[in-house]
Amino acid sequence: MKLASLKSGRDGALIVVSKNLKSAVRVTDIAPTMQALLDDWTHLAPRLETVSDALNAGQQPGAFDLDMGMLAAPLPRAYQYLDGACYVCHIRRNREARGDTLPSDIMQAPLIYQGISHGFGAWNDPITGQKVEDMIDFEAEIAAITGDVPQGVTPDEATQYIRLFCLLQDTSLRRIVAPELKRTFGFLTSKPASFLGPIVVTPDELGDLWDGKMVSGKMHVHLRGQQIGNIHTGIDSPFHYGDAIAHVAQTRPFEPGTIIGLGTVSNEAADDDWSIGAGCIGEYRAMETIQTGEAKLAFMQPGDVVRIELFDFEGNSVMGAIEQNVLGA
Amino acid sequence: MKLASLKSGRDGALIVVSKNLKSAVRVTDIAPTMQALLDDWTHLAPRLETVSDALNAGQQPGAFDLDMGMLAAPLPRAYQYLDGACYVCHIRRNREARGDTLPSDIMQAPLIYQGISHGFGAWNDPITGQKVEDMIDFEAEIAAITGDVPQGVTPDEATQYIRLFCLLQDTSLRRIVAPELKRTFGFLTSKPASFLGPIVVTPDELGDLWDGKMVSGKMHVHLRGQQIGNIHTGIDSPFHYGDAIAHVAQTRPFEPGTIIGLGTVSNEAADDDWSIGAGCIGEYRAMETIQTGEAKLAFMQPGDVVRIELFDFEGNSVMGAIEQNVLGA
Repeated sequence: MKLASLKSGRDGALIVVSKNLKSAVRVTDIAPTMQALLDDWTHLAPRLETVSDALNAGQQPGAFDLDMGMLAAPLPRAYQYLDGACYVCHIRRNREARGDTLPSDIMQAPLIYQGISHGFGAWNDPITGQKVEDMIDFEAEIAAITGDVPQGVTPDEATQYIRLFCLLQDTSLRRIVAPELKRTFGFLTSKPASFLGPIVVTPDELGDLWDGKMVSGKMHVHLRGQQIGNIHTGIDSPFHYGDAIAHVAQTRPFEPGTIIGLGTVSNEAADDDWSIGAGCIGEYRAMETIQTGEAKLAFMQPGDVVRIELFDFEGNSVMGAIEQNVLGA
Repeated sequence: MKLASLKSGRDGALIVVSKNLKSAVRVTDIAPTMQALLDDWTHLAPRLETVSDALNAGQQPGAFDLDMGMLAAPLPRAYQYLDGACYVCHIRRNREARGDTLPSDIMQAPLIYQGISHGFGAWNDPITGQKVEDMIDFEAEIAAITGDVPQGVTPDEATQYIRLFCLLQDTSLRRIVAPELKRTFGFLTSKPASFLGPIVVTPDELGDLWDGKMVSGKMHVHLRGQQIGNIHTGIDSPFHYGDAIAHVAQTRPFEPGTIIGLGTVSNEAADDDWSIGAGCIGEYRAMETIQTGEAKLAFMQPGDVVRIELFDFEGNSVMGAIEQNVLGA
């Protein structure tokens, strides 16, 4: 099943989207918002599956042609956002380039921070209000959205509470990251609001791309019209979604609608193969610094466009694209 | 105006509470939940003020005797929780006792982290599900709850967006704090869900206790029936609520219902006056360690009770109390 939210008020209006992303139908009579659905998933999701089946069969009354421009973030504000640095080569390269080391226990437990959950932008919203001198960067990620998660779940149990997946662009202000992390209280002003892809998909909708631990596929990342990333998302993270959820849930249950990312997708093999590239500018610049002594790829400027899209191994787009430009502060 | 939420579903049901906390009335026809009120404060708050006036005059139809046991957290789940370490002596003592130093820029900008916002417990909910060996502690705080806050507000402008204040108990697992902060991504498993006081009050309800920057009063803290804190809340923080809001809002607007605390209340004079004490066990133990070489006050065990209450300078309780016991994991 594929779902999305029409722009409407602060929380959007829930729609079911066809598999080919061509048509959709409002289902606000079943659940007014994505949050309302997630709050009562067990009862409501089967009713939406019935609508989805009819929509895909071309037999759903009220269906309309989907205009992606009508879409808000699937969950415009959420009660919890957790983001990891689980693709370890991403953080290794970033820190190596600035002379920092990895936390000594990075392989013992996933490195995750509590992020800003209250203002996810739409897939095509501009990145706005940020200063160029703060070094505006994007991060290409795949996020899981959970239902209720009980405290103390094991990694193997944890993935059964994942309801949905979507693309995530975690905007980062690189100039502020290092001094803010030195204060040890984590990211704050260096991580402004993030953006979600237009469409959320249930795990079963991913077929073989979802192995119960990781989401596979090729993440294509374009900046200023040039491809800078072609990353295999299903490998190179020592921690999977269940590990990440279980780590945080050691001391808390989750409310439904927790958005959890494994961090910027990244491949170890990119050290030796430039065609793989990176999922953000900072890591790309780190690779340039490590290999050539000089970072060349510029951070984002007004007018720059970033596009992030996940493809399956047959070249089909899996869950729509994020495509944003930058507006001046 | 004083408000609260009856236990009902995930988000509670909004009530107006009389000034003397003796009576209340449901106002779910005006705003079903505290979040709904905060989302449309400008239009809805004046209607609730009218109800409040009638309730305090004993002329409000539907009024009932308030049973504090019926109350949920005023905002049981919020879209953002920000917590500071603005009473600097709190963090100075904690770090001094464990041999750490203060961040070098601690007086230049408030030290604030993005906290867990999705599961605030009620004033009398037990602290449950935590392991004694993780060193269970509480923190006595006063939180502001904001409306929409625009990005880039100044400290002086920022306080006009504060809609409500309430007590906050920020449960902390001291064994996990230091190793987690060493990873630089901030608190995560070391800060499980927090708890809110039973009643929220508008700034005008505080009278002279609110000077537009800080909330004054005496925070009484009792642990296991013994008073361990008697702290003047209006002093000893170099940063006020407007500073804290403006610091975070440099790179983001806030959604309504952002809960922001200045951290555990703490007084500089406690170094020389044991009757002032501390707002948490960790800081009390730090003072013991610094002054006597030995920490004696035990962390929380099953059956222990903590009580936190703010009094004005005439000895009146300002916004109810938090009183919780600890249950075994």
